[in-house]
Amino acid sequence: MTHQDLFNQIQLKKSFLCLGLDPDMEKIPTHIVDASEDPIYDFCKAIVDEVQHLCVAVKINTAFFEAYGETGYATLGKLIRYIKTHYPDLFTIADAKRGDIGNTSLRYAKAFFEAMPFDSITIAPYMGKDSVEPFLTYEGKYAILLALTSNQGAADFQFKTANKKPLYEDVLATSLTYENASRLMYVVGATKADFLKHIRAIVPDAFLLIPGVGAQGGSLEDVYHNGANDHVGLLVNSSRGILYASRGTDYVEAAHKAAAALQGQMKKLLS
Amino acid sequence: MTHQDLFNQIQLKKSFLCLGLDPDMEKIPTHIVDASEDPIYDFCKAIVDEVQHLCVAVKINTAFFEAYGETGYATLGKLIRYIKTHYPDLFTIADAKRGDIGNTSLRYAKAFFEAMPFDSITIAPYMGKDSVEPFLTYEGKYAILLALTSNQGAADFQFKTANKKPLYEDVLATSLTYENASRLMYVVGATKADFLKHIRAIVPDAFLLIPGVGAQGGSLEDVYHNGANDHVGLLVNSSRGILYASRGTDYVEAAHKAAAALQGQMKKLLS
Repeated sequence: MTHQDLFNQIQLKKSFLCLGLDPDMEKIPTHIVDASEDPIYDFCKAIVDEVQHLCVAVKINTAFFEAYGETGYATLGKLIRYIKTHYPDLFTIADAKRGDIGNTSLRYAKAFFEAMPFDSITIAPYMGKDSVEPFLTYEGKYAILLALTSNQGAADFQFKTANKKPLYEDVLATSLTYENASRLMYVVGATKADFLKHIRAIVPDAFLLIPGVGAQGGSLEDVYHNGANDHVGLLVNSSRGILYASRGTDYVEAAHKAAAALQGQMKKLLS
Repeated sequence: MTHQDLFNQIQLKKSFLCLGLDPDMEKIPTHIVDASEDPIYDFCKAIVDEVQHLCVAVKINTAFFEAYGETGYATLGKLIRYIKTHYPDLFTIADAKRGDIGNTSLRYAKAFFEAMPFDSITIAPYMGKDSVEPFLTYEGKYAILLALTSNQGAADFQFKTANKKPLYEDVLATSLTYENASRLMYVVGATKADFLKHIRAIVPDAFLLIPGVGAQGGSLEDVYHNGANDHVGLLVNSSRGILYASRGTDYVEAAHKAAAALQGQMKKLLS
């Protein structure tokens, strides 16, 4: 998928919403848990089927599948194949936060770009260049580098000043020197919207994946006004706000309503 | 497993060797690939059976399993359960480089400490405190934080000076303030042996996991003399040097010989 393809989808759907799938067995409606042989799959599938036309991307949090061991990992494979087969225009993200020495990162790239058909994967930058570049050798695929995350612990290191600038800025600037840097996107938490203008100046063309709108308190308007570029360049993620809008038998309708509300706000911002 | 248990094993086996399992289908002896239904499992099992008495730890690189999708992940589960059942005294490491916001790190902890019976997992520090602490809530389990890695890309960020010290030092010092910090260990590349004395001064009691001896050029003597504490406090990893000592039908004997050579050097250093 190219930047242009993604921009086309944004224009078509009047949305830059990313649906985050963090399926938590303790929050999935009990009638699914009781009746289904694979409740996580059935729950995620039902939500995706219902809201796919309102979003341009789907982000699957691998931890919520790995927590169930081999069974969970098998569900992950089944789910990404279902999504890719039925909704090939959705940009898919493995939110996996991987990254290791070169020959190992190469295996993670194989895992998510070959063994599973994801379009992109989130990557931790700590190990530098040779831990990131293996993911950038795939045409039409993207590595989404952690820059400034939405959590409290972000303050531990990401704001530390190195060479007169905070570490997250250094991560952004350094990553632009990597081979095939045009295949990079970046994670920037919505709770850090004040920093978006500055970040956009460093990476003017890249798509930014923005978690933290809704449950974590970030504002969609602030994100758009500070972060959009001429291709929009934003994928704003919502997970819990959509998935757990209701825990009753009306969970699909409630998810639709929550996603439609976000898409409605996005449509307004885009016009 | 406690620090004391690990130290007891080191004294008993006269070894602080960690066997690294990075099974690469292109390097596994062809007679296994041709004959076995699960060559990665059979290869790893044969090596572990042969050298387990020479090492105190086994580090499994999850990427080399995930590269084969659901099948690979199932092999990972089968392998760690085999090792834990047959060799309960071996300290097991999921070399998985995970780390995410708190509720997600909690799922990775469940994945590797509950769904699979690992004793420890390697963690990337970029997202800070709440991305690490969920792993530290398990008694007898450890999070092994990346400090100074053995690869070239380590120079990108880990040596950047923040608050008058390099980032990796800041990672070490900051991590000591985390809750249950006594359940932390650290990754320090053997290629960075010059820094070990200084690192040991910051984290005097912690075990250090040291990759990079052998193939990557680090020296065992330098590592020991600069990094050992009164509980030894070192797990020196060898992967390729043992696994691929021979690609012929004598691969088990060759692996034994390579592991025994390292253990022999360790025995000398320990006496």
